[in-house]
Amino acid sequence: SYYCSTEMAVVLCSQTLILFWAIICCALTGKPGNVLSPNIIILLMDDMGWGDLGVFGQPSKETPNLDAMAAQGMLFPNFYSANPLCSPSRAALLTGRLPVRNGFYTTNAHARNAYTPQEIVGGISKDEILLPQMLKKKGYASKIVGKWHLGHRPQYLPLEKGFDEWFGAPNCHFGPYNNSFRPNIPVYKNREMVGRFYEEFQIDRKTGESNLTQIYLEEAFDFILDQIEMQRPFFLYWAADATHAPVYASKPFLGKSQRGRYGDAVMELDDSIGRLLKALRFLNIENNTFVFFTSDNGAALSSGPHESGSNGPFLCGKETTFEGGMREPAIAWWPGHIKEGTVSFQLANVMDLFTTSLALAGVSPPNDTTLDGLNLTPVLLNQDPGALQNRPIFYYRGNELMAVRLGQYKAHYWTWSNSWKQFKTGINFCPGQEVPGVTTHEQKEHTMQPIIFHLGRDPGEKFPIRLEYQDALSRISPVVEQHKKTLTPSVPQLNMCDVAVMVRFSLHQYIYPFLSKHNFK
Amino acid sequence: SYYCSTEMAVVLCSQTLILFWAIICCALTGKPGNVLSPNIIILLMDDMGWGDLGVFGQPSKETPNLDAMAAQGMLFPNFYSANPLCSPSRAALLTGRLPVRNGFYTTNAHARNAYTPQEIVGGISKDEILLPQMLKKKGYASKIVGKWHLGHRPQYLPLEKGFDEWFGAPNCHFGPYNNSFRPNIPVYKNREMVGRFYEEFQIDRKTGESNLTQIYLEEAFDFILDQIEMQRPFFLYWAADATHAPVYASKPFLGKSQRGRYGDAVMELDDSIGRLLKALRFLNIENNTFVFFTSDNGAALSSGPHESGSNGPFLCGKETTFEGGMREPAIAWWPGHIKEGTVSFQLANVMDLFTTSLALAGVSPPNDTTLDGLNLTPVLLNQDPGALQNRPIFYYRGNELMAVRLGQYKAHYWTWSNSWKQFKTGINFCPGQEVPGVTTHEQKEHTMQPIIFHLGRDPGEKFPIRLEYQDALSRISPVVEQHKKTLTPSVPQLNMCDVAVMVRFSLHQYIYPFLSKHNFK
Repeated sequence: SYYCSTEMAVVLCSQTLILFWAIICCALTGKPGNVLSPNIIILLMDDMGWGDLGVFGQPSKETPNLDAMAAQGMLFPNFYSANPLCSPSRAALLTGRLPVRNGFYTTNAHARNAYTPQEIVGGISKDEILLPQMLKKKGYASKIVGKWHLGHRPQYLPLEKGFDEWFGAPNCHFGPYNNSFRPNIPVYKNREMVGRFYEEFQIDRKTGESNLTQIYLEEAFDFILDQIEMQRPFFLYWAADATHAPVYASKPFLGKSQRGRYGDAVMELDDSIGRLLKALRFLNIENNTFVFFTSDNGAALSSGPHESGSNGPFLCGKETTFEGGMREPAIAWWPGHIKEGTVSFQLANVMDLFTTSLALAGVSPPNDTTLDGLNLTPVLLNQDPGALQNRPIFYYRGNELMAVRLGQYKAHYWTWSNSWKQFKTGINFCPGQEVPGVTTHEQKEHTMQPIIFHLGRDPGEKFPIRLEYQDALSRISPVVEQHKKTLTPSVPQLNMCDVAVMVRFSLHQYIYPFLSKHNFK
Repeated sequence: SYYCSTEMAVVLCSQTLILFWAIICCALTGKPGNVLSPNIIILLMDDMGWGDLGVFGQPSKETPNLDAMAAQGMLFPNFYSANPLCSPSRAALLTGRLPVRNGFYTTNAHARNAYTPQEIVGGISKDEILLPQMLKKKGYASKIVGKWHLGHRPQYLPLEKGFDEWFGAPNCHFGPYNNSFRPNIPVYKNREMVGRFYEEFQIDRKTGESNLTQIYLEEAFDFILDQIEMQRPFFLYWAADATHAPVYASKPFLGKSQRGRYGDAVMELDDSIGRLLKALRFLNIENNTFVFFTSDNGAALSSGPHESGSNGPFLCGKETTFEGGMREPAIAWWPGHIKEGTVSFQLANVMDLFTTSLALAGVSPPNDTTLDGLNLTPVLLNQDPGALQNRPIFYYRGNELMAVRLGQYKAHYWTWSNSWKQFKTGINFCPGQEVPGVTTHEQKEHTMQPIIFHLGRDPGEKFPIRLEYQDALSRISPVVEQHKKTLTPSVPQLNMCDVAVMVRFSLHQYIYPFLSKHNFK
């Protein structure tokens, strides 16, 4: 089989790889890479929460490799997603633009999150320029490993949007679907479908076993080694999905965590990232490879304790614009360039990774589009740590600006967890948490008098401020006004209720993958 | 003045001290201490929460010295208080016995916490043997710096219970009381009252300024240097109270934290402990000094965001038997003996510090009393890390066993936050948190069918387990039965409603301090 499918095979493959690296490494000794265009690796976790890492306070302390990555790099306790849901967050990362600007949102109802389920025909607009497209200008080779989530029709797939390689799936690994009406999600190798989840790519729903993370790691190594051989700078977008429900881990990790299956998945990702960073050092490219670790949105608390992570001290989780929905674990690593053991309190977000990557690569940003991402290099390289200190963070659901953070103050213009209707079916975005008038099941408008929290004193958003209210508001209001005045929303691509965006998925799910290639191993 | 009362004086004093150390240090070079009876330092914080340290996930990451202490020592993420309130917790630490055994509890009403306010005449029973009394057998000199809280009548004070020196107060630093009916809390130097809070020992309620932590640090240094000179092993019990409301910090720290005044207090304590550890190294006694850092109970969430800390991902706070009430930050430090950068998942508690200290000192435990504390040295010194793996943790309010933890399972036999009556006055032990049927305002009995949580998957106690319920219960039940069968409660010392225990405090508060000495500087 093409992939190492058993535990033993994984070990053997790793040994072979190490041997191979040793040869490559020797061949490269004395050829330091070009620091002007460093390799860029973005490690994007799926539904992992801020509180899932030891360094961010997870009591189980089971992420020694990520904790070591932080000790060797820069930790960002104030790092944000661009949206509390997967698809828009990922679209924002790759475009450097808020979902309301790049089209990855819906206007079907007020303040609704939207993503790309199997049933949707929408996808990333052809007008949007993605990071790998920009990096091509400097000769970067780009690969995405894992979840895409920017549309599953052929014209939306990664290789149409600047990536040179892809291993992974267009959608979440929900399933198994064992009826003919709803097929399992396809897994691609570049433009070819090479199988489907639960079929060629097993995920055992009973035991939680799957070796997908190991495959993702191998795919990363293959790509890196190829680029070293070709002497090309590379961009690796490693979007592993083991921590998204249904969570999974490979056999050596199952049952190892104090936290159950979710923790097993975290341990395997931690171990994989540890091996990746070790490989970069072994290959002697660590001084020429910028690595950034983060997650796409907050822990999916509504998935329950067996399938979801921790948002630490923050309020609520995925789908909400409270801190638990959008505050992300984040670590930057670049030995020799980023000072080890540092903490940056800079407010930053996934869109900054677009702009920062361009700056690192030496590519000018596109001048005909508005970017929301900022260039973090003055902070990362400690050239001008205060350069971006007044930048705000915007929290959206759909096209509604729910909240804004400026400094330590966060103003909520709308508050909402989820609808009564949904809540009564047992779906709870804030289990065990309740802030009266804030975590409500109706959408509460506060636009005339936003609720303001001080996130330094009160990271859990439990105590609205009173004393310094007017002062805080007077600083936030002009920022919001300016943002709204200059914002031009684009056409929403995820309007689930539009016939044009939705089709009967049974047909499309079967047909699209086969349009590219019918046979797979 | 006896104390450095201004910022500049503090600096000058420190410089003088450093010079003094340098002399002492030279004098001691080549005289390694006796490892069989190492010095013991217990740093006990007041109302500091598990989530207040960077290493435990505080987003502000403002405890670099404590984080470094953890990196140089052993971190305990599963460390507990013996009670969710100050007095009983402190009594348990110093006796190695649960409050229900050592008498520091009340039976006035069901499941009530009790402590020693100014109004009480009760105190630690004369039958209880305290740690410094035991350590005397090996020639240890003992000092308490800071809050005592085991009774304020003359017969209960520290020097009657084995301590050789004391600087601090018998009660909390509430105040100022500016009427003749209720005097301010006295501050003692050994047996003499040397002033009162808000009078000779200023705490500015408006600005939060007080140099008490600096004084406490100096008192610690004075004692350590004296014992080095005398070549005596020492026990220092450093019970600083800056993080107890009203929180305070000295001028150089005021306004420095992202977290407001509470964070300022944490920063000053962190800085002080950093200086203390540095001094131990400088004095060349770090290999002969066991240092343990922890707190007396969970963060006092009911004090509001300006005056309370963080319990990280845990449920509720001080006064409750949820994790937020009793899980404590904990770090052991002993260079050359405790392996650096280790994490122990051992369930442990403050009472273990009694038994562990005896073991370190080479003193046999008293054989006529039941101890609840275990000897942690097999874990600390990595001799037998699994030796204590099945030990339970008991959570009491008054004489009611509210909950038990065994492994990852925690069974609640009674659940309660606080009364409706108290709640309606605005006192909330679980602000922003609500677990239906658990964080209730009536005492809920579950003795026939305890609510069980898996703290690995669900540290926040939000999702009662169902699947493995019977299995977990069958393991916990015999432990609880055994505990109850062998438990002999002692006479409660804190029955506030008994005339014998309470007196009109106005009289006693004035008279007691003067019984020892009338004049003070």
